[in-house]
Amino acid sequence: MRLHGYFRSSAAWRVRIALNLKGLSAEHVFHHLRHGEQRAPDYLRLNPQGLLPALELDDGSVITQSLAICEWLDENHPEPPLLPGGALERARIRAFALAIACDIHPVQNLKVLARLRAMSFPEEEVTGWARTVIQDGMEACEALLQGGEGPFLFGGSPTLADLCLIPQIGNAKRFGCDLSGLTRINAAARACADHPAFIAAAPENQPDAE
Amino acid sequence: MRLHGYFRSSAAWRVRIALNLKGLSAEHVFHHLRHGEQRAPDYLRLNPQGLLPALELDDGSVITQSLAICEWLDENHPEPPLLPGGALERARIRAFALAIACDIHPVQNLKVLARLRAMSFPEEEVTGWARTVIQDGMEACEALLQGGEGPFLFGGSPTLADLCLIPQIGNAKRFGCDLSGLTRINAAARACADHPAFIAAAPENQPDAE
Repeated sequence: MRLHGYFRSSAAWRVRIALNLKGLSAEHVFHHLRHGEQRAPDYLRLNPQGLLPALELDDGSVITQSLAICEWLDENHPEPPLLPGGALERARIRAFALAIACDIHPVQNLKVLARLRAMSFPEEEVTGWARTVIQDGMEACEALLQGGEGPFLFGGSPTLADLCLIPQIGNAKRFGCDLSGLTRINAAARACADHPAFIAAAPENQPDAE
Repeated sequence: MRLHGYFRSSAAWRVRIALNLKGLSAEHVFHHLRHGEQRAPDYLRLNPQGLLPALELDDGSVITQSLAICEWLDENHPEPPLLPGGALERARIRAFALAIACDIHPVQNLKVLARLRAMSFPEEEVTGWARTVIQDGMEACEALLQGGEGPFLFGGSPTLADLCLIPQIGNAKRFGCDLSGLTRINAAARACADHPAFIAAAPENQPDAE
Protein backbone atom coordinates (compact mmCIF):
# COMPACT_ATOMS: atom_id res chain seq x y z
CA MET A 1 0.00 0.00 0.00
CA ARG A 2 1.07 3.59 -0.62
CA LEU A 3 -0.29 6.37 1.53
CA HIS A 4 -0.26 9.79 -0.10
CA GLY A 5 0.02 12.39 2.65
CA TYR A 6 1.77 15.41 4.10
CA PHE A 7 3.24 15.66 7.57
CA ARG A 8 0.91 18.44 8.65
CA SER A 9 -2.32 17.27 6.96
CA SER A 10 -4.82 16.46 9.73
CA ALA A 11 -6.61 13.94 7.54
CA ALA A 12 -3.42 12.08 6.55
CA TRP A 13 -2.37 12.09 10.21
CA ARG A 14 -5.59 10.22 11.10
CA VAL A 15 -4.77 7.47 8.60
CA ARG A 16 -1.17 7.20 9.83
CA ILE A 17 -2.51 6.54 13.34
CA ALA A 18 -4.95 3.93 12.01
CA LEU A 19 -2.19 2.10 10.10
CA ASN A 20 0.01 2.11 13.20
CA LEU A 21 -2.79 0.87 15.46
CA LYS A 22 -3.37 -2.03 13.06
CA GLY A 23 0.38 -2.75 12.81
CA LEU A 24 0.28 -2.20 9.05
CA SER A 25 3.06 -0.67 7.02
CA ALA A 26 2.67 1.44 3.91
CA GLU A 27 5.00 3.31 1.61
CA HIS A 28 4.57 7.01 2.36
CA VAL A 29 4.48 9.49 -0.49
CA PHE A 30 4.51 13.12 0.58
CA HIS A 31 2.89 15.99 -1.28
CA HIS A 32 3.62 19.50 -0.06
CA LEU A 33 0.23 21.11 0.60
CA ARG A 34 1.52 24.66 0.86
CA HIS A 35 3.31 24.28 -2.46
CA GLY A 36 0.07 23.02 -4.03
CA GLU A 37 1.49 19.61 -4.97
CA GLN A 38 -1.92 18.06 -4.31
CA ARG A 39 -3.13 19.90 -7.45
CA ALA A 40 -0.45 18.37 -9.70
CA PRO A 41 -1.93 16.45 -12.68
CA ASP A 42 -0.36 13.14 -11.60
CA TYR A 43 -1.95 13.39 -8.18
CA LEU A 44 -5.31 14.56 -9.53
CA ARG A 45 -5.43 11.35 -11.55
CA LEU A 46 -5.30 9.46 -8.24
CA ASN A 47 -7.65 11.79 -6.37
CA PRO A 48 -9.67 14.23 -8.48
CA GLN A 49 -10.58 16.11 -5.31
CA GLY A 50 -6.96 17.25 -5.03
CA LEU A 51 -7.00 16.48 -1.32
CA LEU A 52 -4.87 14.34 0.96
CA PRO A 53 -4.79 11.53 1.92
CA ALA A 54 -5.28 8.84 -0.68
CA LEU A 55 -4.47 5.17 -0.16
CA GLU A 56 -3.21 3.31 -3.24
CA LEU A 57 -3.70 -0.43 -2.94
CA ASP A 58 -1.39 -3.02 -4.47
CA ASP A 59 -3.86 -3.69 -7.30
CA GLY A 60 -3.88 0.00 -8.27
CA SER A 61 -7.22 0.81 -6.64
CA VAL A 62 -7.34 4.11 -4.81
CA ILE A 63 -9.35 4.99 -1.71
CA THR A 64 -9.84 8.64 -0.83
CA GLN A 65 -11.26 10.39 2.24
CA SER A 66 -9.57 9.62 5.55
CA LEU A 67 -12.65 8.16 7.24
CA ALA A 68 -13.45 5.91 4.26
CA ILE A 69 -9.84 4.69 4.36
CA CYS A 70 -10.10 4.00 8.11
CA GLU A 71 -13.37 2.09 7.67
CA TRP A 72 -11.76 0.06 4.87
CA LEU A 73 -8.75 -0.71 7.07
CA ASP A 74 -11.10 -1.77 9.86
CA GLU A 75 -13.09 -4.07 7.59
CA ASN A 76 -9.97 -5.71 6.15
CA HIS A 77 -7.87 -5.79 9.31
CA PRO A 78 -10.39 -6.01 12.14
CA GLU A 79 -7.91 -6.22 15.04
CA PRO A 80 -7.68 -4.10 17.08
CA PRO A 81 -11.07 -2.59 16.15
CA LEU A 82 -11.37 1.12 15.42
CA LEU A 83 -15.12 0.73 15.99
CA PRO A 84 -15.53 -1.63 18.95
CA GLY A 85 -18.75 -2.53 20.75
CA GLY A 86 -22.30 -2.86 19.50
CA ALA A 87 -24.04 -0.81 16.84
CA LEU A 88 -24.99 2.00 19.24
CA GLU A 89 -21.43 2.33 20.56
CA ARG A 90 -20.11 2.37 17.00
CA ALA A 91 -22.64 5.06 16.12
CA ARG A 92 -21.45 7.22 19.02
CA ILE A 93 -17.81 6.76 17.99
CA ARG A 94 -18.61 7.60 14.36
CA ALA A 95 -20.65 10.65 15.44
CA PHE A 96 -17.71 12.00 17.45
CA ALA A 97 -15.32 11.41 14.55
CA LEU A 98 -17.74 13.10 12.12
CA ALA A 99 -18.28 16.05 14.47
CA ILE A 100 -14.59 16.76 13.93
CA ALA A 101 -14.24 15.61 10.32
CA CYS A 102 -17.37 17.41 9.06
CA ASP A 103 -18.06 20.27 11.44
CA ILE A 104 -14.68 21.48 12.63
CA HIS A 105 -11.81 20.57 10.35
CA PRO A 106 -13.23 21.53 6.91
CA VAL A 107 -14.33 24.94 8.22
CA GLN A 108 -10.84 25.82 9.47
CA ASN A 109 -8.55 24.06 7.02
CA LEU A 110 -5.89 25.62 4.83
CA LYS A 111 -8.25 25.88 1.85
CA VAL A 112 -10.95 27.86 3.67
CA LEU A 113 -8.46 30.16 5.39
CA ALA A 114 -6.74 30.80 2.05
CA ARG A 115 -10.14 31.68 0.58
CA LEU A 116 -10.77 34.18 3.40
CA ARG A 117 -7.34 35.74 2.84
CA ALA A 118 -8.01 35.94 -0.90
CA MET A 119 -11.15 37.92 -0.08
CA SER A 120 -8.98 40.46 1.77
CA PHE A 121 -9.90 39.40 5.27
CA PRO A 122 -7.43 40.84 7.80
CA GLU A 123 -5.09 38.16 9.12
CA GLU A 124 -6.33 38.52 12.71
CA GLU A 125 -9.90 37.85 11.59
CA VAL A 126 -8.78 34.78 9.63
CA THR A 127 -7.04 33.44 12.71
CA GLY A 128 -10.04 34.39 14.84
CA TRP A 129 -12.35 32.47 12.49
CA ALA A 130 -10.28 29.30 12.88
CA ARG A 131 -9.98 29.74 16.64
CA THR A 132 -13.74 30.20 17.14
CA VAL A 133 -14.68 27.26 14.92
CA ILE A 134 -12.29 24.96 16.76
CA GLN A 135 -13.10 26.27 20.26
CA ASP A 136 -16.89 25.93 19.82
CA GLY A 137 -16.52 22.60 18.06
CA MET A 138 -14.27 21.04 20.69
CA GLU A 139 -16.56 22.18 23.52
CA ALA A 140 -19.49 20.50 21.76
CA CYS A 141 -17.38 17.37 21.30
CA GLU A 142 -16.63 17.26 25.04
CA ALA A 143 -20.38 17.48 25.72
CA LEU A 144 -21.06 14.67 23.22
CA LEU A 145 -19.03 12.35 25.45
CA GLN A 146 -21.40 12.92 28.39
CA GLY A 147 -18.78 11.71 30.82
CA GLY A 148 -18.15 8.12 29.84
CA GLU A 149 -15.24 5.85 30.66
CA GLY A 150 -11.64 6.73 29.80
CA PRO A 151 -8.84 6.99 29.41
CA PHE A 152 -9.47 7.11 25.66
CA LEU A 153 -12.60 8.81 24.31
CA PHE A 154 -14.62 5.61 24.27
CA GLY A 155 -12.97 3.42 26.88
CA GLY A 156 -9.79 1.49 27.35
CA SER A 157 -8.45 1.52 23.81
CA PRO A 158 -8.21 4.12 21.05
CA THR A 159 -10.93 4.26 18.42
CA LEU A 160 -11.78 6.17 15.26
CA ALA A 161 -12.76 9.06 17.54
CA ASP A 162 -9.30 9.38 19.11
CA LEU A 163 -7.54 9.33 15.77
CA CYS A 164 -9.67 12.30 14.68
CA LEU A 165 -9.22 14.07 18.01
CA ILE A 166 -5.44 14.24 18.14
CA PRO A 167 -4.80 16.08 14.83
CA GLN A 168 -7.62 18.48 15.72
CA ILE A 169 -5.96 19.24 19.05
CA GLY A 170 -2.83 20.03 17.04
CA ASN A 171 -4.81 22.64 15.12
CA ALA A 172 -6.40 23.95 18.33
CA LYS A 173 -2.95 24.60 19.78
CA ARG A 174 -1.75 26.29 16.59
CA PHE A 175 -4.65 28.76 16.75
CA GLY A 176 -4.41 29.41 20.49
CA CYS A 177 -7.63 27.74 21.66
CA ASP A 178 -8.15 27.18 25.37
CA LEU A 179 -9.06 23.54 25.89
CA SER A 180 -8.17 23.49 29.59
CA GLY A 181 -11.76 22.86 30.72
CA LEU A 182 -12.31 19.83 28.51
CA THR A 183 -11.68 17.10 31.05
CA ARG A 184 -12.44 13.98 29.02
CA ILE A 185 -10.79 15.28 25.88
CA ASN A 186 -7.63 16.16 27.81
CA ALA A 187 -7.56 12.74 29.46
CA ALA A 188 -7.78 11.08 26.06
CA ALA A 189 -5.09 13.36 24.66
CA ARG A 190 -2.76 12.34 27.50
CA ALA A 191 -3.44 8.65 26.90
CA CYS A 192 -2.75 9.07 23.17
CA ALA A 193 0.44 11.02 23.87
CA ASP A 194 1.87 7.90 25.53
CA HIS A 195 0.70 5.48 22.84
CA PRO A 196 3.34 4.32 20.32
CA ALA A 197 0.89 4.35 17.39
CA PHE A 198 0.14 8.01 18.02
CA ILE A 199 3.76 8.96 18.68
CA ALA A 200 4.96 7.43 15.42
CA ALA A 201 2.18 9.19 13.49
CA ALA A 202 2.90 12.69 14.80
CA PRO A 203 3.82 15.31 12.19
CA GLU A 204 7.22 16.01 13.74
CA ASN A 205 8.15 12.35 13.33
CA GLN A 206 7.51 12.24 9.57
CA PRO A 207 10.33 12.38 7.01
CA ASP A 208 8.86 15.48 5.35
CA ALA A 209 8.55 17.44 8.63
CA GLU A 210 9.92 20.96 8.49
CA MET B 1 -37.81 6.33 16.83
CA ARG B 2 -38.00 10.12 16.65
CA LEU B 3 -36.07 12.00 14.00
CA HIS B 4 -35.26 15.59 14.89
CA GLY B 5 -34.99 17.55 11.65
CA TYR B 6 -36.03 20.51 9.55
CA PHE B 7 -37.50 20.35 6.07
CA ARG B 8 -34.59 22.23 4.48
CA SER B 9 -31.69 20.72 6.46
CA SER B 10 -29.51 18.80 4.00
CA ALA B 11 -28.30 16.44 6.71
CA ALA B 12 -31.81 15.62 8.00
CA TRP B 13 -32.93 15.11 4.38
CA ARG B 14 -30.25 12.40 3.99
CA VAL B 15 -31.63 10.51 6.97
CA ARG B 16 -35.22 10.82 5.75
CA ILE B 17 -34.16 9.15 2.50
CA ALA B 18 -32.36 6.39 4.41
CA LEU B 19 -35.42 5.69 6.58
CA ASN B 20 -37.64 5.56 3.50
CA LEU B 21 -35.26 3.25 1.62
CA LYS B 22 -35.32 0.87 4.59
CA GLY B 23 -39.11 1.12 4.88
CA LEU B 24 -38.81 2.41 8.46
CA SER B 25 -41.10 4.93 10.04
CA ALA B 26 -40.17 7.51 12.65
CA GLU B 27 -41.94 10.29 14.43
CA HIS B 28 -40.68 13.55 12.94
CA VAL B 29 -39.93 16.49 15.22
CA PHE B 30 -39.14 19.72 13.40
CA HIS B 31 -36.85 22.46 14.65
CA HIS B 32 -36.79 25.71 12.71
CA LEU B 33 -33.13 26.31 11.81
CA ARG B 34 -33.56 29.93 10.77
CA HIS B 35 -35.32 30.67 14.06
CA GLY B 36 -32.43 29.07 15.95
CA GLU B 37 -34.56 26.35 17.54
CA GLN B 38 -31.60 23.95 17.31
CA ARG B 39 -29.94 26.07 20.02
CA ALA B 40 -32.85 25.70 22.49
CA PRO B 41 -31.77 24.16 25.83
CA ASP B 42 -34.10 21.16 25.43
CA TYR B 43 -32.58 20.31 22.08
CA LEU B 44 -29.00 20.92 23.23
CA ARG B 45 -29.59 18.27 25.89
CA LEU B 46 -30.24 15.81 23.04
CA ASN B 47 -27.45 17.08 20.80
CA PRO B 48 -24.86 19.37 22.39
CA GLN B 49 -23.62 20.28 18.92
CA GLY B 50 -26.89 22.14 18.31
CA LEU B 51 -27.11 20.62 14.85
CA LEU B 52 -29.74 18.63 13.02
CA PRO B 53 -30.50 15.77 12.66
CA ALA B 54 -30.58 13.64 15.78
CA LEU B 55 -32.24 10.24 16.02
CA GLU B 56 -33.83 9.41 19.38
CA LEU B 57 -34.23 5.68 19.90
CA ASP B 58 -37.05 4.09 21.88
CA ASP B 59 -34.74 3.48 24.86
CA GLY B 60 -33.83 7.17 25.02
CA SER B 61 -30.42 6.82 23.35
CA VAL B 62 -29.59 9.55 20.87
CA ILE B 63 -27.50 9.25 17.71
CA THR B 64 -26.19 12.42 16.10
CA GLN B 65 -24.48 13.10 12.75
CA SER B 66 -26.38 12.06 9.65
CA LEU B 67 -23.77 9.61 8.38
CA ALA B 68 -23.45 7.92 11.78
CA ILE B 69 -27.25 7.58 11.84
CA CYS B 70 -27.24 6.07 8.34
CA GLU B 71 -24.50 3.60 9.25
CA TRP B 72 -26.47 2.63 12.37
CA LEU B 73 -29.63 2.13 10.32
CA ASP B 74 -27.65 0.01 7.86
CA GLU B 75 -26.20 -2.18 10.61
CA ASN B 76 -29.58 -2.71 12.28
CA HIS B 77 -31.73 -2.94 9.17
CA PRO B 78 -29.40 -4.35 6.51
CA GLU B 79 -31.93 -4.57 3.65
CA PRO B 80 -31.71 -2.93 1.21
CA PRO B 81 -28.05 -2.11 1.89
CA LEU B 82 -26.86 1.50 1.83
CA LEU B 83 -23.32 0.15 1.45
CA PRO B 84 -23.56 -2.82 -0.93
CA GLY B 85 -20.67 -4.79 -2.42
CA GLY B 86 -17.27 -5.69 -1.04
CA ALA B 87 -15.04 -3.57 1.17
CA LEU B 88 -13.53 -1.63 -1.74
CA GLU B 89 -16.94 -0.77 -3.21
CA ARG B 90 -18.13 0.32 0.24
CA ALA B 91 -15.00 2.48 0.60
CA ARG B 92 -15.73 4.21 -2.73
CA ILE B 93 -19.35 4.83 -1.71
CA ARG B 94 -18.29 6.20 1.67
CA ALA B 95 -15.62 8.38 0.04
CA PHE B 96 -18.21 9.94 -2.29
CA ALA B 97 -20.60 10.54 0.62
CA LEU B 98 -17.80 12.09 2.70
CA ALA B 99 -16.65 14.28 -0.21
CA ILE B 100 -20.06 15.93 0.07
CA ALA B 101 -20.57 15.67 3.84
CA CYS B 102 -17.07 16.93 4.77
CA ASP B 103 -15.79 18.97 1.87
CA ILE B 104 -18.83 20.66 0.35
CA HIS B 105 -21.78 20.94 2.71
CA PRO B 106 -20.09 22.24 5.90
CA VAL B 107 -18.27 24.94 3.94
CA GLN B 108 -21.49 26.33 2.43
CA ASN B 109 -24.06 25.70 5.14
CA LEU B 110 -26.22 28.27 6.89
CA LYS B 111 -23.81 28.58 9.80
CA VAL B 112 -20.77 29.46 7.68
CA LEU B 113 -22.69 31.86 5.46
CA ALA B 114 -24.13 33.57 8.55
CA ARG B 115 -20.60 33.94 9.87
CA LEU B 116 -19.47 35.58 6.62
CA ARG B 117 -22.43 37.97 6.75
CA ALA B 118 -21.65 38.79 10.39
CA MET B 119 -18.15 39.78 9.25
CA SER B 120 -19.74 42.31 6.87
CA PHE B 121 -19.16 40.36 3.70
CA PRO B 122 -21.29 41.75 0.85
CA GLU B 123 -24.22 39.46 0.06
CA GLU B 124 -23.01 38.77 -3.49
CA GLU B 125 -19.67 37.53 -2.17
CA VAL B 126 -21.42 35.30 0.37
CA THR B 127 -23.50 33.77 -2.40
CA GLY B 128 -20.42 33.53 -4.61
CA TRP B 129 -18.55 31.67 -1.86
CA ALA B 130 -21.30 29.05 -1.63
CA ARG B 131 -21.59 28.75 -5.41
CA THR B 132 -17.84 28.22 -5.89
CA VAL B 133 -17.55 25.67 -3.09
CA ILE B 134 -20.46 23.65 -4.47
CA GLN B 135 -19.44 23.97 -8.14
CA ASP B 136 -15.84 22.87 -7.55
CA GLY B 137 -16.94 20.15 -5.14
CA MET B 138 -19.53 18.64 -7.44
CA GLU B 139 -17.11 18.60 -10.38
CA ALA B 140 -14.61 16.70 -8.24
CA CYS B 141 -17.39 14.30 -7.19
CA GLU B 142 -18.23 13.58 -10.83
CA ALA B 143 -14.55 12.80 -11.45
CA LEU B 144 -14.49 10.48 -8.41
CA LEU B 145 -17.07 8.28 -10.14
CA GLN B 146 -14.68 7.64 -13.07
CA GLY B 147 -17.58 6.57 -15.27
CA GLY B 148 -19.01 3.50 -13.57
CA GLU B 149 -22.40 1.88 -13.96
CA GLY B 150 -25.66 3.74 -13.41
CA PRO B 151 -28.33 4.72 -13.15
CA PHE B 152 -27.58 5.47 -9.49
CA LEU B 153 -24.11 6.65 -8.46
CA PHE B 154 -22.90 3.16 -7.68
CA GLY B 155 -25.07 0.90 -9.81
CA GLY B 156 -28.62 -0.29 -9.95
CA SER B 157 -29.83 0.80 -6.52
CA PRO B 158 -29.39 3.90 -4.38
CA THR B 159 -26.64 3.96 -1.76
CA LEU B 160 -25.29 6.24 0.94
CA ALA B 161 -23.72 8.28 -1.88
CA ASP B 162 -27.05 9.06 -3.56
CA LEU B 163 -28.68 10.13 -0.34
CA CYS B 164 -25.89 12.67 0.16
CA LEU B 165 -26.00 13.77 -3.48
CA ILE B 166 -29.66 14.77 -3.74
CA PRO B 167 -29.75 17.36 -0.91
CA GLN B 168 -26.47 18.79 -2.20
CA ILE B 169 -28.00 19.20 -5.66
CA GLY B 170 -30.81 21.09 -3.95
CA ASN B 171 -28.23 23.51 -2.57
CA ALA B 172 -26.46 23.72 -5.93
CA LYS B 173 -29.69 24.84 -7.58
CA ARG B 174 -30.39 27.37 -4.86
CA PHE B 175 -27.01 29.03 -5.45
CA GLY B 176 -27.18 28.92 -9.25
CA CYS B 177 -24.46 26.34 -9.96
CA ASP B 178 -24.18 24.91 -13.46
CA LEU B 179 -24.15 21.12 -13.17
CA SER B 180 -25.13 20.51 -16.81
CA GLY B 181 -21.81 18.86 -17.70
CA LEU B 182 -21.92 16.31 -14.87
CA THR B 183 -23.23 13.32 -16.80
CA ARG B 184 -23.15 10.61 -14.15
CA ILE B 185 -24.40 12.88 -11.38
CA ASN B 186 -27.30 14.05 -13.53
CA ALA B 187 -28.21 10.48 -14.44
CA ALA B 188 -28.30 9.55 -10.75
CA ALA B 189 -30.34 12.65 -9.93
CA ARG B 190 -32.92 11.63 -12.56
CA ALA B 191 -33.09 8.08 -11.17
CA CYS B 192 -33.59 9.42 -7.64
CA ALA B 193 -36.26 11.88 -8.82
CA ASP B 194 -38.41 8.89 -9.82
CA HIS B 195 -37.77 6.89 -6.66
CA PRO B 196 -40.54 6.92 -4.01
CA ALA B 197 -38.09 7.01 -1.08
CA PHE B 198 -36.51 10.18 -2.46
CA ILE B 199 -39.82 11.77 -3.40
CA ALA B 200 -41.27 11.29 0.09
CA ALA B 201 -38.10 12.73 1.69
CA ALA B 202 -38.02 15.93 -0.37
CA PRO B 203 -38.25 19.19 1.62
CA GLU B 204 -41.42 20.32 -0.16
CA ASN B 205 -43.16 17.14 1.00
CA GLN B 206 -42.47 17.68 4.72
CA PRO B 207 -45.14 19.00 7.12
CA ASP B 208 -42.94 21.95 8.13
CA ALA B 209 -42.27 23.06 4.52
CA GLU B 210 -42.78 26.75 3.89
